Amino acid sequence: MASDEFSIIDRYFSAVGTSAYRSRLAIGDDAAIVDVPADKQLVMSMDTLNAGVHFALDADPADLACKALAVNLSDLAAMAAEPAWFLLSLTLAENDDYWLKRFSDSLKQVAETYQVELIGGDTCRGPLSISIQIAGLVPRDCYVTRARAQAGDLVVVSGELGNAALGLAHQQQKIQLPGDLQEVCLASLNRPRPRLELSPFLRAFATAAIDLSDGLQGDLQHILAASEVGAIIERDNLPVNHWIRQQDVYQYALTGGDDYEICCTLAASHLKEVETWNQANPHCQLSVIGEITESGFYLRQDEALIDLSGSRGYQHFA
Amino acid sequence: MASDEFSIIDRYFSAVGTSAYRSRLAIGDDAAIVDVPADKQLVMSMDTLNAGVHFALDADPADLACKALAVNLSDLAAMAAEPAWFLLSLTLAENDDYWLKRFSDSLKQVAETYQVELIGGDTCRGPLSISIQIAGLVPRDCYVTRARAQAGDLVVVSGELGNAALGLAHQQQKIQLPGDLQEVCLASLNRPRPRLELSPFLRAFATAAIDLSDGLQGDLQHILAASEVGAIIERDNLPVNHWIRQQDVYQYALTGGDDYEICCTLAASHLKEVETWNQANPHCQLSVIGEITESGFYLRQDEALIDLSGSRGYQHFA
Repeated sequence: MASDEFSIIDRYFSAVGTSAYRSRLAIGDDAAIVDVPADKQLVMSMDTLNAGVHFALDADPADLACKALAVNLSDLAAMAAEPAWFLLSLTLAENDDYWLKRFSDSLKQVAETYQVELIGGDTCRGPLSISIQIAGLVPRDCYVTRARAQAGDLVVVSGELGNAALGLAHQQQKIQLPGDLQEVCLASLNRPRPRLELSPFLRAFATAAIDLSDGLQGDLQHILAASEVGAIIERDNLPVNHWIRQQDVYQYALTGGDDYEICCTLAASHLKEVETWNQANPHCQLSVIGEITESGFYLRQDEALIDLSGSRGYQHFA
Repeated sequence: MASDEFSIIDRYFSAVGTSAYRSRLAIGDDAAIVDVPADKQLVMSMDTLNAGVHFALDADPADLACKALAVNLSDLAAMAAEPAWFLLSLTLAENDDYWLKRFSDSLKQVAETYQVELIGGDTCRGPLSISIQIAGLVPRDCYVTRARAQAGDLVVVSGELGNAALGLAHQQQKIQLPGDLQEVCLASLNRPRPRLELSPFLRAFATAAIDLSDGLQGDLQHILAASEVGAIIERDNLPVNHWIRQQDVYQYALTGGDDYEICCTLAASHLKEVETWNQANPHCQLSVIGEITESGFYLRQDEALIDLSGSRGYQHFA
């Protein structure tokens, strides 16, 4: 992008987001400089969204900015961290002022909401692609990994599962959602809400955590593998909307991606803290959906146990 | 890339590079965890290379890995920092084992050489693109920016200028380099060497620094703008190879990109330290090429002053 690069950055990306950990030097030099408080550890992740793979070429740039930042923020939530800074590498086929304004306005809004500051990055020519690298902070040695779930722990998820996959299927005209669910499912798909409000809860109680990007079945298996344990999930405890329940299409909740809810495990003795959390947080309800076991991975459905550990998974989408 | 993603990461990217600041948690969870020593600040940069824009689709993957990491390391050198960790987002059209092995072997080698550890990232499907986000460390408040050059300072550059641009022109068959220069110029283009060895020198003596990615003329202007000063460059002091001098094609040194040498400014009283550096570092020679002035930007050539501040620049390539 050479000659245009500096003007694009000045015009659209010079003041995006604020952080409690304000940078010493942000955009405009060869690199950014930030201070990491001595009592914190740095948490780093990076995710890319590519046109034609992760989103349609004509997708709303406001949605893209929201999603690109949200999927990275969700990785911080899964580690029980808080956001601090991010870098953006934006590859664009052409300078489209409308697209850039809508993208950057949305990016600013999400960055303000989650208190994360854009401190650097790159703009290039090429097929539309959005890479974000995010940096968060966590009190020293209080991060939560995938590796410490224990037999007897409860399996807990936030929010409702399957909404993003329903939104995608509806958008692709594979299903026709009832009117009352269309908006909420499309919002789940296009503007996921990273569950950063859960970070203090996870630090206090979780033995393991992951964010649900590929679907509960696959993502929970990462916890099981890292912790060397098994699990039984109760189908009837899965937090799903009325349509999934009525149509008996639980596969959306089990294998549908892009929910960006948190799945965590915690000692059964902390069940009371889950209830306390739910009373205080009506917009981020936690559901106990099963239990960690010694080995195996099953779904209990009408008294039967369905093996979820196989490579084929639970009734994949056609 | 979904189902392939984890195996690609396991197979090719699970143990790339080491760092004096070894991560607490690297690849394999939602994010990496690292400790930033209390006496250091964190230095962050991110650069993307896209096929068809920054390199040819059939470029050697070993060169690509080297260049993608080197251009990021060079940003750390420009801030007078030392490397610590990096994240890689790799977008590939297909899983090509030969390509991946050659890319990751080269990445490992460069990461070992510069003591930087791969701690995370992403692999996706799509048009070939390599994004690297790099994190370095600098002793607290010892970083060097573009903003503190002062009138009377010397302008200093490392290495030889224009070699990468000559290599590109030779590769594109626009020129025919003499045999003794082909290898060195192609290496400059494809395997740039970030000047991290200069970081302690820059911290001790430089008032401003930048790495030369777009060419001396454009990049030095970033220092002049940020520092609100001018400069006069002496053409005959530009460190160029014998062919540029003989053919009188100094435009390669002035406007040719991709050299990744360091341009810095320092007080004239530190001239002796430049000489001391040069005696001790035969492979990283520094050249005094001019002086910072109150305003304007000129090249002195045969007693004439050529204005370099205009938008057209010094005799651009056709």
